[in-house]
Amino acid sequence: MHILPLIEAKSELTDGGLPPEPIVLSTRIRLARNISPFSFPGWASEEVREEVLDKCIQTLSALGTLSSAVALRMDALSALEKQVLVERHLVSRELTESTGGSGVIITPDQHLSIMVNEEDHLRLQAVRSGFNFKTAWSDINTLDTVIEGELDYAFSSDLGYLTACPTNLGTGMRASAMLHLPGLVIQEHMEKVIRMVNQLGMAVRGLFGEGSEATGSIFQISNQQTLGETEESIIKRLVNILEAIVEQEQNARQMVLETKAAKLLDKMGRALGILQNGHLLSSEEAMNLLSLMRLAVDLGLLDEPYRAHIDRLFIETQPGHIQFTARGEIEPGQRDEQRARRMREEFRRVDGLRISGGGAGA
Amino acid sequence: MHILPLIEAKSELTDGGLPPEPIVLSTRIRLARNISPFSFPGWASEEVREEVLDKCIQTLSALGTLSSAVALRMDALSALEKQVLVERHLVSRELTESTGGSGVIITPDQHLSIMVNEEDHLRLQAVRSGFNFKTAWSDINTLDTVIEGELDYAFSSDLGYLTACPTNLGTGMRASAMLHLPGLVIQEHMEKVIRMVNQLGMAVRGLFGEGSEATGSIFQISNQQTLGETEESIIKRLVNILEAIVEQEQNARQMVLETKAAKLLDKMGRALGILQNGHLLSSEEAMNLLSLMRLAVDLGLLDEPYRAHIDRLFIETQPGHIQFTARGEIEPGQRDEQRARRMREEFRRVDGLRISGGGAGA
Repeated sequence: MHILPLIEAKSELTDGGLPPEPIVLSTRIRLARNISPFSFPGWASEEVREEVLDKCIQTLSALGTLSSAVALRMDALSALEKQVLVERHLVSRELTESTGGSGVIITPDQHLSIMVNEEDHLRLQAVRSGFNFKTAWSDINTLDTVIEGELDYAFSSDLGYLTACPTNLGTGMRASAMLHLPGLVIQEHMEKVIRMVNQLGMAVRGLFGEGSEATGSIFQISNQQTLGETEESIIKRLVNILEAIVEQEQNARQMVLETKAAKLLDKMGRALGILQNGHLLSSEEAMNLLSLMRLAVDLGLLDEPYRAHIDRLFIETQPGHIQFTARGEIEPGQRDEQRARRMREEFRRVDGLRISGGGAGA
Repeated sequence: MHILPLIEAKSELTDGGLPPEPIVLSTRIRLARNISPFSFPGWASEEVREEVLDKCIQTLSALGTLSSAVALRMDALSALEKQVLVERHLVSRELTESTGGSGVIITPDQHLSIMVNEEDHLRLQAVRSGFNFKTAWSDINTLDTVIEGELDYAFSSDLGYLTACPTNLGTGMRASAMLHLPGLVIQEHMEKVIRMVNQLGMAVRGLFGEGSEATGSIFQISNQQTLGETEESIIKRLVNILEAIVEQEQNARQMVLETKAAKLLDKMGRALGILQNGHLLSSEEAMNLLSLMRLAVDLGLLDEPYRAHIDRLFIETQPGHIQFTARGEIEPGQRDEQRARRMREEFRRVDGLRISGGGAGA
């Protein structure tokens, strides 16, 4: 299996260096870059795409920053391996669906990755756990500068970086954060928040980007605009909006605790009960249950170390990961059994939610 | 509290002498009797009803069999106490709603009880846990004979015992069993079974008799006919039908295990999880969850001693019992919290369903 080292390594999102935090799960910045004089991947012949892929892999693998990175050609990967990479947010679904001449380069800790011949020749990505734009920007900016020294980026002094789709023109940057907003979801305030965020020029999406659902009360918020503004300014605007949302989420949680504490406690308790004792769990239900468990950690009802545990399970109980662990494609029904077994094992030691004065605490 | 000794005593249904068994939860026989020359309670003046009540309590309390029995006048009981008696099947809802001059006499172990001035002057009841018509019939027949020596029963040599409602005329007997039929419910065979039982002249009801729902897959099956047939013959016909239903339930469970094992296991596991970790439980949901736990015991997934435990909880988590234990009437929301707390305490020691080769067993 080509991707086994990646699955077995400690990665930024499954074993983040910093302790994970409430509300902001992770920070991500990606830059779209293209190389002169090649046509954009969507217009390029298969031959040109292959040429670009070879050139990029060769050049990038030689860089110090990427010396221990894994270079993968998409056509060498099984459908299952591709799915695992999507679930880890290391490649886009679009890249897995592309025909020939595409690939990805990934550092062992997976906080840097570069897709080759997705919509653009290069899509550089830096990921950090938690609310960490400073580090993510420094990572990606450094990587970008190093690559720019080796490859001839398509650049216009008027427009900035040229991209296949005009929505990425200029900085080519998409900065985003993954937010856990169960309070706003329970209070039914998300529609209002999304409207507000959109009015401020930012986009709100589900866990797997455009068109995906916000399963588990997880939302991805990112900039829409890439032109006419510096990267730092875009990030600063985004951070301001994210900070406002974090505050709204905190208020919403406070309101839930004041007005619906018993219901929320019951909901979290049942979620724990199902994780500990269920025998069939769909991927979507698992996400929703884990989301409630993360909230339980935030509220001090589960021990702090479970937070990192839960973040790892968010990824490792996705369908691809469940199959990959089982060493092969298995039926959805069996996946649901395996997922439930994994959850039972992971949560069996928890002796109820830790409620002061309650009956089921440890 | 007048009924406290009854709640605190070991009773037939909460601490049955024999080990409880699968499918047939309990056996019950009641006899309707009236006393000459008094009018039936529904037609009698309050004065006459009081006279009958006094006479019955005096006479019956003096009997050796009932020497340690508790005699309760309905008008001396609080609404909550009445509700507890209904939940224990010691009095009918009708008796609790009657105006003046009615009461009940109950032996400490609660396997014998006599309602006074319900629809008839006397309603004698014998209850036994499990499938036990022989003992129940012997109990009630003995009691009936003793009472007949002391009171002048209204009896016609043509019709047999005279009763307020013609449907009870003759033997005045209603024999019934409480059956736990989750297999037939899951297989959606109950409608067919009910039709069959009705065609054979027997009635099917929910846990609390006429008009009640079959919550927790518990059904009460009883004879309809009371006239033109001896008590022994009616009981024999009922027992034959019950044996046939028990066999159908066993077959249904086998079928469920062959075709829906994973789903059933998941359902039982989730039920356990909610009992162990829920914080709000309605009475109806509690019944349904306990029903699944009783099935888990039957299938060897929970230790046998839990069966008696579950049977006790079926009764003790009813709304009246929950309030009685809390020493006063409390809001439904709080009842649901208390009920959930009781369940968490009762099930916290269970370490998952005991599945061979599974991950969560003890």
